Amino acid sequence: MADTSADVVIVGGGLIGLATAWRLARDGVRVVVADPTPGEQTSSVAAGMLAPVTEVEYGEDDLLALNLAGVAAWPAFAADLEHATGLPSGLYASGTLSVAYDADDAAAIRRLAEYQRRLGLDVVELTGREARKREPLLAVGVSAGMWVPNDHSVDNRRAVTALLAATEAAGVQLVRRTVARVVVDGQRASGIELAGGEVIRAETVVVAAGPWSAQIDGIPDELRPPVRPLKGEILRLRVPEAYRPALQHTVRATARGFAVYLVPRPDGELVVGATSTELGYDTRVLAGGVFSLLRDARMVLPITDELELVEAVAGLRPTTPDNAPILGPAGIDGLLWATGHYRNGVLLSPITAGLIAQTVLTGTVPDLAKPFLAERFRTAPRAS
Amino acid sequence: MADTSADVVIVGGGLIGLATAWRLARDGVRVVVADPTPGEQTSSVAAGMLAPVTEVEYGEDDLLALNLAGVAAWPAFAADLEHATGLPSGLYASGTLSVAYDADDAAAIRRLAEYQRRLGLDVVELTGREARKREPLLAVGVSAGMWVPNDHSVDNRRAVTALLAATEAAGVQLVRRTVARVVVDGQRASGIELAGGEVIRAETVVVAAGPWSAQIDGIPDELRPPVRPLKGEILRLRVPEAYRPALQHTVRATARGFAVYLVPRPDGELVVGATSTELGYDTRVLAGGVFSLLRDARMVLPITDELELVEAVAGLRPTTPDNAPILGPAGIDGLLWATGHYRNGVLLSPITAGLIAQTVLTGTVPDLAKPFLAERFRTAPRAS
Repeated sequence: MADTSADVVIVGGGLIGLATAWRLARDGVRVVVADPTPGEQTSSVAAGMLAPVTEVEYGEDDLLALNLAGVAAWPAFAADLEHATGLPSGLYASGTLSVAYDADDAAAIRRLAEYQRRLGLDVVELTGREARKREPLLAVGVSAGMWVPNDHSVDNRRAVTALLAATEAAGVQLVRRTVARVVVDGQRASGIELAGGEVIRAETVVVAAGPWSAQIDGIPDELRPPVRPLKGEILRLRVPEAYRPALQHTVRATARGFAVYLVPRPDGELVVGATSTELGYDTRVLAGGVFSLLRDARMVLPITDELELVEAVAGLRPTTPDNAPILGPAGIDGLLWATGHYRNGVLLSPITAGLIAQTVLTGTVPDLAKPFLAERFRTAPRAS
Repeated sequence: MADTSADVVIVGGGLIGLATAWRLARDGVRVVVADPTPGEQTSSVAAGMLAPVTEVEYGEDDLLALNLAGVAAWPAFAADLEHATGLPSGLYASGTLSVAYDADDAAAIRRLAEYQRRLGLDVVELTGREARKREPLLAVGVSAGMWVPNDHSVDNRRAVTALLAATEAAGVQLVRRTVARVVVDGQRASGIELAGGEVIRAETVVVAAGPWSAQIDGIPDELRPPVRPLKGEILRLRVPEAYRPALQHTVRATARGFAVYLVPRPDGELVVGATSTELGYDTRVLAGGVFSLLRDARMVLPITDELELVEAVAGLRPTTPDNAPILGPAGIDGLLWATGHYRNGVLLSPITAGLIAQTVLTGTVPDLAKPFLAERFRTAPRAS
């Protein structure tokens, strides 16, 4: 490939990079996405929960606002995607049932429900019997529940497939190559260099490289974002026809203190996740991870034993010190971050795409993105 | 392929069929083996234990004699195979350590040890501490053990690879096609017909089709052997360099009443098996099977949690009503069985090959094979 140029080059073709590329291309921007294996890393491993309510953490108000905007953005994004491609977006507006196993588990979800109601979130507390009415195959040991009507899920692999088609149709150029470095001339980023030496010049470089975002050559060390990989294993099970649907809603459980989720797909897949391990870039599936997922899943859904184990796979969540993403200007001209989405990459793809596109097009960071600038992690500059 | 002929045609290219073909070819017999996926069914799923002593069952004296002959035949067979091909045979003369977890488990292995000693078998009872001396990574909960110096293992996939090379070098013709039926003319088998219609004529047809041996068209119904599939799931784990060798011997455990085995390979693989389920020809890997294997393995070898889960796979054991194989004349001229090896297919490949070859070459069934004739299952013919 000869040296080429674009308005925007995006490093990373996962859901965040692809959604951003698609948004920009529809606004008339010439976009190149560079990724040797688009959609095949973190974006292919997720369960795809849209769970701002059930995943709310004490004291993360800015992140909650972003996540709620994320789930609100999905229906229109999914409709556009399906309209543009004729492919399913993967969105499944199923609602989520949180359940507890023993008395300690029940106390924990009751405390969380109280906090959620204080935040004005829509949750309905249930007895164990009421929970089983919504999901009849839950274990008789399920002692309490909470119905969260607005937490849904997206089949992340279908979303990747649709976004690859949509970006192509919108004229995005997908370069299936490794990025060697970001080209920085003086105080501005001016493109990327591919492994092999070809350069793609661009006005703006967006780094959406997930857990690898801090590893890219060329970026000045003091600007590298504090993004690290956090390994997670998930299982993909298949529900035989005779038992379908094993579940109709996302089920999140606290089972003897362990958290597990079971995300059903309309096609009979059931995703069980997820472990959480600090092991660098290791993506081996460990026996202990698979064991713990199965142990917890079968405790709340005994029929798990009868489901086919189709795949066990590990991915790397791009994680930051405050569990919130890093969005917008990187600190030198022409370089933007769209990374660090941790467990919320699927959820935040549409909203991040919109926020980054707006930043590129207007040169101004939207208010919703301001709490997530990289500069929040920067220590004061030393006196020279 | 034009119609062809051979002295012997073997239906089934698993370990039994390939070993038999190799034995016959070395004796100058022209052999064809027909199998659409040689070595890829039951023979690829086994753990490959050579375990006549640890698997002895009360009252199965004839089978014990055959199994002991089987393990005795392996070293020469392996040496020949390695000499003929330059490939590893997979034989690993590791010895076997049986261990018990709780007091009931310990009582069970002590009873078995007593029976084994009465049969004159070589077993050494150990305390839990002595067992851990032989395998330091065993759980502290291991309460008793038994050392069985002559039960070994074979890497079944290496054995398949070597046998495929050996049979080819010896002039065996491997036909990678489905067998439509055995051709029976009057009262004798005269060859096979492949899917597609081509016929391979032969003096002798040997059916070594494992769990499918009773399903082949053309064989008179009253002669079909009572062989059924018994599903088993196994796991292939990988021991990281830092923890090698996690085990040096085959470890068989009774853990809270559940039996599990862990078979180490010199290359760092650790095979964990096996479930046992009557589900017809179903080879789906079920979550409950994987769960139970991991639960039991980690109870006796806690480091299991840190090993990579490389593969979970299910195979079909060719099982008979008395758990013993079906060898020799089928009841019409020119048709022989070499099937029904249940859990002992790897163990018995060399000895079965020898017994079947002798039967073909001499027309006489060797004494060792006589208890395993198909006629033991036949009811008296009705008066006509």
